[in-house]
Amino acid sequence: MNAPSNITDPLVLFMPSGKRGRFPKGTTVLDAARELGVYVESVCGGRATCGRCQIVVQEGNFAKHKIVSSNDHISPRGAKEERYERVRGLAEGRRLSCSSTIEGDLVVDVPQDTVINAQVVRKAALDHIIERNPAVQLCYVEVDEPDMHKPLGDLDRLKAMLEKDWGWQDLLVSQHLLPRVQTILRKGNWGVTAAIHRDLATSRPTIIALWPGLHNEAYGLACDIGSTTIAMHLVSLLSGRVVASSGTSNPQIRFGEDLMSRVSYVMMNPDGRQAMTTAVREAINGLLDKVCAEGEVSSDDVLDAVFVGNPIMHHLFLGIDPTELGQAPFALAVSGAVHTWGSEIGLKINEGARVYVLPCIAGHVGADAAAATLSEGPYRQDAMMLLVDVGTNAEIVLGNRARVVAASSPTGPAFEGAEISSGQRAAPGAIERVRIDPETLEPRFRIIGSEKWSDEDGFAEDAGKLGVTGICGSAIIEVVAEMYLSGIISEDGVIDGALAARTPRIFQNGRTSSYLLHEGQPRITVTQNDVRAIQLAKSALYAGIKLLMEKQGVDHVDTIRFAGAFGSFIDPKYAMVLGLIPDCDLAEVKAVGNAAGQGALMALLNRDYRREIEETVRRIEKIETALEPNFQQLFVNAMALPNKVDPFPKLAEAVTLPPRRANAGDDPASGGGDASPRRRSREERAARRSRT
Amino acid sequence: MNAPSNITDPLVLFMPSGKRGRFPKGTTVLDAARELGVYVESVCGGRATCGRCQIVVQEGNFAKHKIVSSNDHISPRGAKEERYERVRGLAEGRRLSCSSTIEGDLVVDVPQDTVINAQVVRKAALDHIIERNPAVQLCYVEVDEPDMHKPLGDLDRLKAMLEKDWGWQDLLVSQHLLPRVQTILRKGNWGVTAAIHRDLATSRPTIIALWPGLHNEAYGLACDIGSTTIAMHLVSLLSGRVVASSGTSNPQIRFGEDLMSRVSYVMMNPDGRQAMTTAVREAINGLLDKVCAEGEVSSDDVLDAVFVGNPIMHHLFLGIDPTELGQAPFALAVSGAVHTWGSEIGLKINEGARVYVLPCIAGHVGADAAAATLSEGPYRQDAMMLLVDVGTNAEIVLGNRARVVAASSPTGPAFEGAEISSGQRAAPGAIERVRIDPETLEPRFRIIGSEKWSDEDGFAEDAGKLGVTGICGSAIIEVVAEMYLSGIISEDGVIDGALAARTPRIFQNGRTSSYLLHEGQPRITVTQNDVRAIQLAKSALYAGIKLLMEKQGVDHVDTIRFAGAFGSFIDPKYAMVLGLIPDCDLAEVKAVGNAAGQGALMALLNRDYRREIEETVRRIEKIETALEPNFQQLFVNAMALPNKVDPFPKLAEAVTLPPRRANAGDDPASGGGDASPRRRSREERAARRSRT
Repeated sequence: MNAPSNITDPLVLFMPSGKRGRFPKGTTVLDAARELGVYVESVCGGRATCGRCQIVVQEGNFAKHKIVSSNDHISPRGAKEERYERVRGLAEGRRLSCSSTIEGDLVVDVPQDTVINAQVVRKAALDHIIERNPAVQLCYVEVDEPDMHKPLGDLDRLKAMLEKDWGWQDLLVSQHLLPRVQTILRKGNWGVTAAIHRDLATSRPTIIALWPGLHNEAYGLACDIGSTTIAMHLVSLLSGRVVASSGTSNPQIRFGEDLMSRVSYVMMNPDGRQAMTTAVREAINGLLDKVCAEGEVSSDDVLDAVFVGNPIMHHLFLGIDPTELGQAPFALAVSGAVHTWGSEIGLKINEGARVYVLPCIAGHVGADAAAATLSEGPYRQDAMMLLVDVGTNAEIVLGNRARVVAASSPTGPAFEGAEISSGQRAAPGAIERVRIDPETLEPRFRIIGSEKWSDEDGFAEDAGKLGVTGICGSAIIEVVAEMYLSGIISEDGVIDGALAARTPRIFQNGRTSSYLLHEGQPRITVTQNDVRAIQLAKSALYAGIKLLMEKQGVDHVDTIRFAGAFGSFIDPKYAMVLGLIPDCDLAEVKAVGNAAGQGALMALLNRDYRREIEETVRRIEKIETALEPNFQQLFVNAMALPNKVDPFPKLAEAVTLPPRRANAGDDPASGGGDASPRRRSREERAARRSRT
Repeated sequence: MNAPSNITDPLVLFMPSGKRGRFPKGTTVLDAARELGVYVESVCGGRATCGRCQIVVQEGNFAKHKIVSSNDHISPRGAKEERYERVRGLAEGRRLSCSSTIEGDLVVDVPQDTVINAQVVRKAALDHIIERNPAVQLCYVEVDEPDMHKPLGDLDRLKAMLEKDWGWQDLLVSQHLLPRVQTILRKGNWGVTAAIHRDLATSRPTIIALWPGLHNEAYGLACDIGSTTIAMHLVSLLSGRVVASSGTSNPQIRFGEDLMSRVSYVMMNPDGRQAMTTAVREAINGLLDKVCAEGEVSSDDVLDAVFVGNPIMHHLFLGIDPTELGQAPFALAVSGAVHTWGSEIGLKINEGARVYVLPCIAGHVGADAAAATLSEGPYRQDAMMLLVDVGTNAEIVLGNRARVVAASSPTGPAFEGAEISSGQRAAPGAIERVRIDPETLEPRFRIIGSEKWSDEDGFAEDAGKLGVTGICGSAIIEVVAEMYLSGIISEDGVIDGALAARTPRIFQNGRTSSYLLHEGQPRITVTQNDVRAIQLAKSALYAGIKLLMEKQGVDHVDTIRFAGAFGSFIDPKYAMVLGLIPDCDLAEVKAVGNAAGQGALMALLNRDYRREIEETVRRIEKIETALEPNFQQLFVNAMALPNKVDPFPKLAEAVTLPPRRANAGDDPASGGGDASPRRRSREERAARRSRT
């Protein structure tokens, strides 16, 4: 199309991609971008009517790039662009790249947020920019009118024009459009916008929606179906903007709090599977209504959707019986990525809209873990990354560019505040931070909803309003860790009843002792059983991690990512003191929030990420902890604080750890004060809990 | 897989394909066939359980091929084949090619009718063998059991095995199977038969159905949706046998007898389109029940279906509003081939079954004409072939390997007995053959249901039972032609009233004369209006043909094919005497029955024919008679018997034609006895009837 460029042609640099090339004067900026593979949206195909191809010329001397860029180096606004500016408006400095030609060296900025209808970015769901290459593209064409001499059908002439103007060959067409194509073409006076879905893994590019005239909106959903919470982003496929984000409780909770009780419900009730499928789909449609209302978007403009979830949510959402996942060998009905239609699974979005579900890694490591892996990308880097998502099951991924291994470990619900005497979910009034003075053994704490510590002025007032209602997950970690750091509990987790002599906060409670954290209504204590529950949970997690480290042949990890809500609130330092995670430079331990949701968003905005995670999941080695003979010993070692055998040198640089007792070999009984047969059998039972 | 063959290896010739090659001793006959591209079915994949891969060794010295073939040149029956013979039975001489190895030179016959369940071929719908290459293939595999170490999903392991055993890569899977795959695999104890649909034009090969264990039946439908009659074949996709054929009236007739009245119904009634779509789909499901019952086939084993029909039937069947087809420019909503699902259009066949609809050629030349073109294949030969399907509209295709042109011409319903005073549809008692003695002008005739001519002994008895009820289409052609040959009507179609003096069979009837064909109850006559109606109809057809001949630049055609019911009953000689069709060697004029149905059958049994007709339709040049300035003159010329200007030299060799009157130029009025302005304006009106 363009003459071959030569050294005297203007040099054009596109930002933020950094792609550059020389183009003959007169080349449109849009053509130059396309030739370089820079993704600049265009719906109208260069007619200067959609406004999606906006760019900004950066003025100045970019010495590093040897470019002096100026608005004088781009053609002035022509009639078509002026008409667009008059009718639709064009922000200061913005140009339509389809209508601007290169007349000299340029640095061109491609804004990722091209706002067409003055909508504002409501929420930044992402901490990094995703290069867009969505599975759905809008293409406006003007179709030839019917001609008796060349009696091609309306649809066939539309396809011919989509090939001529946009290069789409051999397009398929969604069946539901056949009866509508005539009306739509005539209503648009032969101008029509087609939504083309192309996603190599499924089939040939397909026309999935049609509108009369220029249609300038296309949206997608990225949705993480958690057992507890369903989270959804509504995103513009044309600009990448997150238009709205929202979440809702998973209504399946009424059939069972945790995953296994939901599987049991399916096994016990003939219509159980259907009821839970219906419940989750209804909730998703409700959430869809909410984000569409918030974003002022018509659900009919939603053309693509990406879903992730753990294997049981994944199966129930797709209408598949999850019973097999409740027992060995935990067989998934389908582990590969699923391509389907919104209409097939009852989504109230555009009738032709597609749905993509990320692959599952294993029977207990689902599409959510795959999405988190996509988001954090251990396989994209050389450092050994540990990615952990803690829930009732913890999903653990460990690896780097060379090799990735994954497992799940049955942590149980202790980290979520269940099984803890004063535990509760995170909510206003819940204790979220705890410190214990090692001298006095007096605690101070903060509650959700107040900025003040309990020993600061004004706390009493806040507490009066909010109450002090219990201990949430993050504080459970902290209080047990602080009890250990202050000597209240020993290396093996026994509360030292002798300290009752020093402070009334330690008191006898049946055969064991407890720590009084807050005297009030309710009275908040940490019992020996609470400490044991946390020990069991963290041992399961750590043993799983350690197993993967052994598989990788490493004795430490370079970086740790906590995915999920739990990880967002805990203090990495305390998690490490407790021995929840292995030793690591504390600066390299980060909470990444809903990484699964971010991964879904990435797969929505760029279909290349779909291929990337499909390929990655095929490569990931899955470790089934229950089948590993080593797991039980690792579990028993991990019952100690932080660990019976593993050193924590990096942690020791940041925190003064209590002196370690002489390690008397591998006998778990030898180190603890409570080496009764009853305790040992409990640990072993817990170790065996990892599915047998 | 096999070592490269050399000149000392045994030579194997497959019949009827004639493909041959040398193969090392020990090669299975099935592998040899596959290597040569000879289609030998196999469902079980070489396990000697499905029995589909049967072959017969031809014994003897095949000097022409330099092969001495003997059953001694094939391995004796092994244990697996003996087990099959014991359990399922194997006819004399039949061998399982998967279990027989080549040990010497062989001539191998691949029977096209491999009968597995002792079903008999009920009806030969085809006059030639169609090489099979159906869009659906059954593949039995034994899937690995779930493995916690390699946690691939059930579906993913199934796909892996289909790739390993059958070479299918990157299979898609029908959405409805996802929730079923677990149960099916376990029910079959990990042995499962998958139906794979592959049809290049649609998408990647797809698993469309699954059964536990070995499933050895797969069927398809080939259906021609006529305005009057719907015809259906039920065919085994594994052997090519036509298991049952049936037909039914198109229930849309209650909305309108002819196509245009059905379009009007849609235009006048808001729910008209839906009502007609429902009616035709219900009729097709009824027919499906009938052929399945007749063939003792479960409708759930029907996995593929091919439909053809004229454009209006095509649109209504697919749920598309046909209104645009009722007026210029007669725009089709879709002209290309349509790929859809049986479930999408309400067919009660296997839920994953596919549907293929042949392309339409033009707004009045539909998928039925395309199917007839596929069946008769003018484009496959050098001779100039005229293919005509006469109905209310006549579809005309003319061409050869070099070029094909097509048109439709509005013949009206006269040939079907409508607009004829004593006309009726073909039914017992209807006159179907007529001869008139040129001396006495006495007629003799035959009626449907009797073998006797009316002047033979025993006719009166038959007529007494059946009645003599009217004249059907074929006899209308004959009686008018015989009236012309015997001098009752002139070259321009006027009944010679003066002949009333010679015979009472000619009598005055208002301002014109009539001919009495049969004195009875009812009295059967041929009126001047009847002759005129036939003239108008045949002129429209002939003018259309002539227009295509002009486009092709030919003054004669080499061969003529009459498709459809009408063509099956008329005598080509009389059609030519009447000037319905151009002059041609009478031996080269053939009725080919339901060629549209045959074409559908071909596209069902061999998907290569789908590509062939799609490509052909793209190449066919469509002529719109209404837009051709020449059409009116051709029409007027064709009003004469056989034609005012065209000679019929080949016909004259077979039939003594009345002497032609001196041709007084092109003025149509000059030749006839009835040159009144009224008559001329009627001819011209008729000529203009070709849609304006």
